[in-house]
Amino acid sequence: MSVLDTSSDNALAPRLTLEGPLVLQSGVSLSPVTIAYQTYGTLNAEKSNAILVCHALTGDQYVAGAHPVSGRDGWWHHVVGPGKVIDTDRYFVIGTNVLGGCMGSTGPKEINPETERPYGLLFPVITIRDMVQAQARLLDQLGIEKLFCVTGGSMGALQTLEWAHRFPERVTAAVPIAGSYRHSAQNIAFDEVGRQAIMADPEWRQGNYLEEGTVPTRGLAVARMAAHITYLSEPALQRKFGRRLQDRENLTYGFDADFQVESYLRHQGSTFVDRFDANSYLYISRAMDYFDLAEENGGNLADAFKDTPVRFCLISISSDWLFPTSESRAIVHALNANAAKVSFVEVESDKGHDAFLLDEPEFHDTLKGFLDGAARTVGLDDGAQGESA
Amino acid sequence: MSVLDTSSDNALAPRLTLEGPLVLQSGVSLSPVTIAYQTYGTLNAEKSNAILVCHALTGDQYVAGAHPVSGRDGWWHHVVGPGKVIDTDRYFVIGTNVLGGCMGSTGPKEINPETERPYGLLFPVITIRDMVQAQARLLDQLGIEKLFCVTGGSMGALQTLEWAHRFPERVTAAVPIAGSYRHSAQNIAFDEVGRQAIMADPEWRQGNYLEEGTVPTRGLAVARMAAHITYLSEPALQRKFGRRLQDRENLTYGFDADFQVESYLRHQGSTFVDRFDANSYLYISRAMDYFDLAEENGGNLADAFKDTPVRFCLISISSDWLFPTSESRAIVHALNANAAKVSFVEVESDKGHDAFLLDEPEFHDTLKGFLDGAARTVGLDDGAQGESA
Repeated sequence: MSVLDTSSDNALAPRLTLEGPLVLQSGVSLSPVTIAYQTYGTLNAEKSNAILVCHALTGDQYVAGAHPVSGRDGWWHHVVGPGKVIDTDRYFVIGTNVLGGCMGSTGPKEINPETERPYGLLFPVITIRDMVQAQARLLDQLGIEKLFCVTGGSMGALQTLEWAHRFPERVTAAVPIAGSYRHSAQNIAFDEVGRQAIMADPEWRQGNYLEEGTVPTRGLAVARMAAHITYLSEPALQRKFGRRLQDRENLTYGFDADFQVESYLRHQGSTFVDRFDANSYLYISRAMDYFDLAEENGGNLADAFKDTPVRFCLISISSDWLFPTSESRAIVHALNANAAKVSFVEVESDKGHDAFLLDEPEFHDTLKGFLDGAARTVGLDDGAQGESA
Repeated sequence: MSVLDTSSDNALAPRLTLEGPLVLQSGVSLSPVTIAYQTYGTLNAEKSNAILVCHALTGDQYVAGAHPVSGRDGWWHHVVGPGKVIDTDRYFVIGTNVLGGCMGSTGPKEINPETERPYGLLFPVITIRDMVQAQARLLDQLGIEKLFCVTGGSMGALQTLEWAHRFPERVTAAVPIAGSYRHSAQNIAFDEVGRQAIMADPEWRQGNYLEEGTVPTRGLAVARMAAHITYLSEPALQRKFGRRLQDRENLTYGFDADFQVESYLRHQGSTFVDRFDANSYLYISRAMDYFDLAEENGGNLADAFKDTPVRFCLISISSDWLFPTSESRAIVHALNANAAKVSFVEVESDKGHDAFLLDEPEFHDTLKGFLDGAARTVGLDDGAQGESA
C-alpha cells in the first residue's frame, strides 16, 4: 500500500512535512510545515481522479468514515463515500487539516521548534492563500499535479476559490459551496465576538494556556454558541425547537436551560471544547476575515479569474444568511465577465448555512450532476476509473 | 410644581415606591417595589394626554433630553420633545425604568431588605407582565387612569402589547414598534449567548460581584457585542464599515482591531459596561425570552385581544431580522380577527432593528400621522391640550 492508498478511515491521518519553508502572505517564513491529511478511494494510474475536499472553520481532514477522536461520522459523510455523490469507488478524495488547524497540521497548538513549546500567539497569522499554498505543496509531494476537482463549503469555498484563482492550471473543476469572494462586515463582526469571548476567558492566559495547563473552555464555548446560531436559520430554529421547554412542564423562573434551544446551544458549546483548540479558532477565523479576492485584484473580482480554464459550479443555500446567495451571484457575474464555464444553483432549503453538511437531495443532485458532466469532459467516465475498479 | 410636573430633563429621575407588594407572575411577592421614572411636558386638566414610552432591553427612563449619567441625548430624542413626533408641548410623556432595571427601579443591583445587601441572583425572575403591572401601579399612584397612548420599540413593543392585552380599558392607542407577540427561538438563542458570556466571566462571582467588589466587564462586553450585531443589518454594516481598515493602511497580521467594524463593536462593548448592570442584563433578557402572548392565551393570539377597544398601529422595519415584519403581521392578523382598529406599516429602511432609534422620516411620519388621528378621536386636538398651552 503506497502513501496514496491510505484509505483506512479509522486510522489516525498520515502527516507529511513540506520540503523547505512556506513563505506566508505576511512575509513570514514558516518551517517546518506539516500537513495532516486523509484519503479515501484510490488514485487512478493517470492520477486524474483526485478531488480535494476543503473543510470549514471547525472541520478537519476526516471527511468521511468514523472520526478517530469523536467516533462520529466524518463531517461530509452524506456526500463522500462509496456510491455517494463524491463516489470514492470512482474518485480519490483528499481531505487535509488546514494550516493553523488543530488536528495534526502545523498550527498554534503544535511545538514551535525555536522555543520547544507550543506556538500559542507566536504562531504567525495565516491566510486562506497560505492554507492553499500548503495544500498545493502537499499535492506536489504526493505527485498529484492536477486536481479533477476542488470543493468545500463555507471556509472550504474560500479555499476552493483561492485554488481556482491561484492555480487555474491545476484544477479542472471547482465547486465553492455556501461561500463568498470576501468576508462581509457582518461576518467579521461575528468572528470578532468569538475571538473576544475566547480572549476574555482568564484561562486563555494570553494564548499560553497549553503551557500553563489551563483550558479556556467557557470562552470557547460562548464563541461556538454565537457562531452556531449563524450556521442555522430562524425558520429552522423555529421548526426544530420553537419555544418548546426542555424536560419540564413549566417555566422555572430561573436561568437554567428552560428552552430546548438553550439546551441545544449549551450542548454545542460544551462538546466543541473537547475537540477544538481555542487558539486555532482565533487563527482560522482571522484567516477568513482577511479573505478578499476582489481587493487582492485591484478591487475587480473579474480579474481574479482572467481567462480561467476552470469549470465552476457555484452552489448557495436559499436560507443561508452567513454567506447569502448574493455573494455567490457576485462570483458568477465575475466569471461571466471572463466567459468562464459556470453553473450556478441556489438550493432551496430552510436549514441555513449548514445545509451543505446535511442530507439535502437537491444539493446532492446538483453536485453529482456537475461532477458527472465535468468527468465526461476529461474522459473520466465510469469505465475509466482507477485500478480499484 | 406637582409630582406630575417634573419635566426638568437633567435632574435625576424621581422614584416612587408602590403601595404594598407586587405579586409577580412567578407567584413571588416582591416588596418594596420602587419605580424610577421621568416625565416630559405637562399633564392636562383632563389627564387625557399621557403617553407611556416603554424602553428596550438596555434603555431607561431618559427618553429625551440629556442623560444624567452618559451626558448624551436620551434614547428617543429624535422622536420625543417639543415640536417633535411625540410633541411634549402637547403630550405628557412618561418614561419608566423597568422593574429589574438598573437606573433606579427595583432590580438585582438594589438592596434586598431581607439581607441588606444587593439582591444579585436572589432577585426573583420577572416577566414583561410584571414590568407592566409595576407601571400600572405607578400610574395609579400618579392618578393617571387612562393613557392616551403606550408605545415603544423592541422590548418596549412587548410591554406595549402586554398593556393592550392586560389593560385595554386603560389605553386609547397602542403603537408596538419592531416587536413581536413572542420571543422567537433565534432570539432566545442570542439572549442565551449573552447570558452565558456574562456568567462565564469569573468576575461575575455567581452574581455577587457587587458585594465582592468586582465587575464582569469582559463578559458583559461580549454579550453586548453579540447583541449589537443583531440590532443592525448586513447591508447597514456593509455600507457603514464594509471591510475598511481602522487607522491603518494595511492588515497587521495580528488580532488587533484591523477592521473598522471590529473597532466599532469593541467600542460598543466597552462603553456599555460603564452604564449597565450585568445581572440586570440577565433578568431583562430572561423576561423577553419568557414573553409569549399566544401561549398565555391557549395558543390563540387572537384571544389576547378579544373585542379590544384599543386603536393599534403596528410598525416594523423592513431590514429588521431580530423582530422581522412577519411577527408584526401575525399580530395584525390576530387583531383583524377581532375586528380591531389596526394600522400597519413596514418602514422601508436598511438600518435594521435599531432604525426605530434613528432619524427615519418614514417611521416618524407614520407615528405622527397615527397619533394625530388618534388624538382627534378623543378630542385631544392642538387646541385642547393641557394648561401649559
